[in-house]
Amino acid sequence: MLKAVFFDIDDTLYDSTTLARRARLNSIRAMIDAGLEERDEEKLYTLLQKIIKKFGSNYPRHYDELLKELRIPWNPKIIAAGVVAYEHTKFGYLKPFPGVVPTLLELRQRFKLGVISNGLAIKQWEKLINLSLHHFFDVVVTSEEVGCEKPAKEIFDVAVRRLGVAGEECVMVGDRIATDIRGGKLAGMRTVWVKKGKYASEEPRSEEERPDAVIGDIVELPGALRKLSR
Amino acid sequence: MLKAVFFDIDDTLYDSTTLARRARLNSIRAMIDAGLEERDEEKLYTLLQKIIKKFGSNYPRHYDELLKELRIPWNPKIIAAGVVAYEHTKFGYLKPFPGVVPTLLELRQRFKLGVISNGLAIKQWEKLINLSLHHFFDVVVTSEEVGCEKPAKEIFDVAVRRLGVAGEECVMVGDRIATDIRGGKLAGMRTVWVKKGKYASEEPRSEEERPDAVIGDIVELPGALRKLSR
Repeated sequence: MLKAVFFDIDDTLYDSTTLARRARLNSIRAMIDAGLEERDEEKLYTLLQKIIKKFGSNYPRHYDELLKELRIPWNPKIIAAGVVAYEHTKFGYLKPFPGVVPTLLELRQRFKLGVISNGLAIKQWEKLINLSLHHFFDVVVTSEEVGCEKPAKEIFDVAVRRLGVAGEECVMVGDRIATDIRGGKLAGMRTVWVKKGKYASEEPRSEEERPDAVIGDIVELPGALRKLSR
Repeated sequence: MLKAVFFDIDDTLYDSTTLARRARLNSIRAMIDAGLEERDEEKLYTLLQKIIKKFGSNYPRHYDELLKELRIPWNPKIIAAGVVAYEHTKFGYLKPFPGVVPTLLELRQRFKLGVISNGLAIKQWEKLINLSLHHFFDVVVTSEEVGCEKPAKEIFDVAVRRLGVAGEECVMVGDRIATDIRGGKLAGMRTVWVKKGKYASEEPRSEEERPDAVIGDIVELPGALRKLSR
């Protein structure tokens, strides 16, 4: 019998990709407005992406690095303009995908709910809180706390143990085959792939990566779970 | 002839004291909502104030310290709840005092305008940007960049030099006698004390601390400057 459903956060519960893109674009425009000499938005966006890839998305000084790359002296007005625009865009876009809240409300009547997420604990909690979803989950496990990332089996095992259930009684729901589906299956869970967004064209490379169900939208999840329960 | 007017930021251009108080109170309520075991708001507020005093307002881990003081294990949900509530309150309250924008618009037609502020450069710029005031000033000088704080004469001298004027041609406007008025006079400026808020009961302790004009609200500034110009 299925007892618990675990969710990925980014691009599963909210549109993380669009948020990041819009926030970075808005930060670039704000930096230009604040006096940045380079005004080619596309060039700046490409450079910023390169910096984020190099230093990681949680590095706190992307805009300092941007100025360095452009050989522009450190400028607190320009950096602050980027930070503020990013923050404002974030607050505007941190909304659950349509259907997430009613779906979670419905599932909560039949299942324990949890989150298994790669990232920094406080950052991931900040997202859940800004999404107003922090009261929906019985357990939230982040890679920072466990010390390893999805698809490592350990992070799923920790989540399962915290709920006091068995892997076989759980379902993992996520948008990425390589992390959510592969990891969930390694831990003995059933898996549901939300096939949309930037990883929609991923393909299972082996039997361990084959999801038990594929949905195009989170609102199809209750129906998919009913089929898996049979 | 007066050529430039310099402003303090906190509690002069916006209501920094009320913002900080509301933001801290809202962060405490959010942490209680997120499961903080101690639920006495007044006790928590006092403890948080003590921590902010000890570590400084720019220290990034006040809520971690709060949990430590309460002997509660590190909890990313509670800390993130505090951070998010603080940020949301900040965005809501970071508005210029009534009258600031029309006053600055009016003064810009006759004077160069500047900011002289104690604090971190990026943090102070973030405030100006959130206040939508970052395009109003010809120069913004922060203590972080200069390496000393108001009332040190040097920080005023740097601001004056950047505008290419003399101290005697400038006016410093602020809410604090001990920093804005004393420092402005040390640098040879005229000074206008905005006598309101938590420092309204300050008294000049010597001739160097006696403001050239006292106003109760920023909208009185153009009139006060006209008198000083005579």
